[in-house]
Amino acid sequence: MSLLADTCGRILPIDLSLANATQRGLDRKTKPRHSLGRLEELACRIAAIGGSALPGTLSKAIVVMAADHGVAAEGVSAYPQEVTSQMLRNFARGGAAINVLARQAGVRLVVADLGVKMPLAAMPDVRVHRIGAGTDNFAHGPAMTRAQAVAALEVGIRIAGELVRDGIGLLGVGDMGIGNSTAASALTAAFTGARPAAVTGRGTGIDEATLAHKVEVIQRGLHVNRPATGDALDVLSKLGGFEIAGLAGVVLGAAAHRVPVMLDGFITGAAALAAVRMAPRAAEYVLASHLSVECGHRVVLDAHGVRPLLDLDLRLGEGTGAALAMPLVDAALAIVTDMATFEAAGVSDTGR
Amino acid sequence: MSLLADTCGRILPIDLSLANATQRGLDRKTKPRHSLGRLEELACRIAAIGGSALPGTLSKAIVVMAADHGVAAEGVSAYPQEVTSQMLRNFARGGAAINVLARQAGVRLVVADLGVKMPLAAMPDVRVHRIGAGTDNFAHGPAMTRAQAVAALEVGIRIAGELVRDGIGLLGVGDMGIGNSTAASALTAAFTGARPAAVTGRGTGIDEATLAHKVEVIQRGLHVNRPATGDALDVLSKLGGFEIAGLAGVVLGAAAHRVPVMLDGFITGAAALAAVRMAPRAAEYVLASHLSVECGHRVVLDAHGVRPLLDLDLRLGEGTGAALAMPLVDAALAIVTDMATFEAAGVSDTGR
Repeated sequence: MSLLADTCGRILPIDLSLANATQRGLDRKTKPRHSLGRLEELACRIAAIGGSALPGTLSKAIVVMAADHGVAAEGVSAYPQEVTSQMLRNFARGGAAINVLARQAGVRLVVADLGVKMPLAAMPDVRVHRIGAGTDNFAHGPAMTRAQAVAALEVGIRIAGELVRDGIGLLGVGDMGIGNSTAASALTAAFTGARPAAVTGRGTGIDEATLAHKVEVIQRGLHVNRPATGDALDVLSKLGGFEIAGLAGVVLGAAAHRVPVMLDGFITGAAALAAVRMAPRAAEYVLASHLSVECGHRVVLDAHGVRPLLDLDLRLGEGTGAALAMPLVDAALAIVTDMATFEAAGVSDTGR
Repeated sequence: MSLLADTCGRILPIDLSLANATQRGLDRKTKPRHSLGRLEELACRIAAIGGSALPGTLSKAIVVMAADHGVAAEGVSAYPQEVTSQMLRNFARGGAAINVLARQAGVRLVVADLGVKMPLAAMPDVRVHRIGAGTDNFAHGPAMTRAQAVAALEVGIRIAGELVRDGIGLLGVGDMGIGNSTAASALTAAFTGARPAAVTGRGTGIDEATLAHKVEVIQRGLHVNRPATGDALDVLSKLGGFEIAGLAGVVLGAAAHRVPVMLDGFITGAAALAAVRMAPRAAEYVLASHLSVECGHRVVLDAHGVRPLLDLDLRLGEGTGAALAMPLVDAALAIVTDMATFEAAGVSDTGR
């Protein structure tokens, strides 16, 4: 069996009895019942995902994947295509926003080239798993072959597996790719049935006329490719990107290893949609870090049935929202392990 | 001049030219303009508050004040009054939620007894600044005298001053006091003109009948005391609490020292309303950490004109929301100081 099929098959339901046990423990802590709200829900969800007693902390990593998009030739971005490679080098040198925020949150950063157009000279901190020199332009035909999509997915599955074997207990995902919000909008439209205009935003910052053109390009891509919406791999290969497929693989790999995966914004949300359409049980392993300014993100999060932890008007990508939300997971776990109980602290417990 | 009047007089307008300079610096960093959204706004605000170049990090402290409330005798809480002292001891021993979250966020915790009903045996980690053995029941008359309110305010001003002299650059506030959501609702109704029912919630978790009773108690308190809504000290002394007045003092002291102050939930928000009514310029020094489940909190934040950073359904108090939001300030400052510019990183800058 292929690694992809095997991974999808190994994803188990989360264990809600562990969520309940965690909640019972929280209810003995010195605070009104449920008064830490979504922090308590987060602790319970992580217990259910892990399938065993909650550890006090989880080692954290964010996988950032970069690739180029043929559809950038349609003029759908505010930045030229070489920025993808330039930012990949910026990640490798530690100067990008995700480098700063990952350091701040104590998060290991793993950067991978899934296929930027202009490959970098070898850099020690970039993993090279190039599927090609960018995808083809989906406005004219499929972005990639089905085999390329599987290869990219399996890169993500392998990276997730390695990180889990290294002791990582919380994974995050981040993206870089000029043109990739166009791909994410096309995927979201195909997976959810939403109109392209309802899930297409300004990406890195395009004007009104370019936005209208971007919607038209997506409509053309859907018309030309006619993705089989019930076949997630068909949708992903025709409209996605190498980094998007790779990140979908990270989601599947995390879920197969019972590790929660913190999404970032719109692009990683669309990647996770592809993963969940391939393996519906993966949905329960997904945590949403923030609600992006990008209008399609709300549609994606609703499709996942998850509520974002942060609402900070972010629209950067790279995993920045995931890095900002990860300390909330640390906080949730510390509450479970470190707080005193009513009994131990000698505090009257009359709450319900 | 009194310490209170002197402190109110020393609060300067924030320096928006520093906010603009910080934004110009952010616009040179390798990311689309404004793509870190409210994190960028936070950095700019903190620069404007501080009145000088942004430091890379700010030392952080949260001041948690505890006191008892005479109005608890009306049966408005799910917990008995002795819980205030019990929780004060829990803070001193390090077992409460705020202890755990402050440790997690690298925040110094300062705990003060402003007047719990049953004083504790001396504990090294509790500062004792008792104004009395709890306030009087505001359903029958003023909660405290005007002199008591001034004394409590000045405790907060002095603590803020000491912490700033110790090098603290970001202050947070937290509360503990059985019955204090009743006081906060009464203050909010008096300060904003909202109907008591619109700003009264379930506090630590009361049932429907007790909630109706709580609203009635607040209406009675407003009727009996007839606070002069244009005289913030009159409102605060008649309807507030020792810890609420003390926390209002922390807000004033922070603002007078050009230090930002991170609010927690409804109680600290109401305390800050009192501060801002005494010294309107203090409003610009206030940061809102989260939106509480408590319905009056939205009214308080709207009155402050601030948008909360987190929306986690918290309703605990103690400064827990402030502790959870403080890492976002660290992140905002790190972005300003640590990210590469387009020029240094060799990334094409074509965004607007």
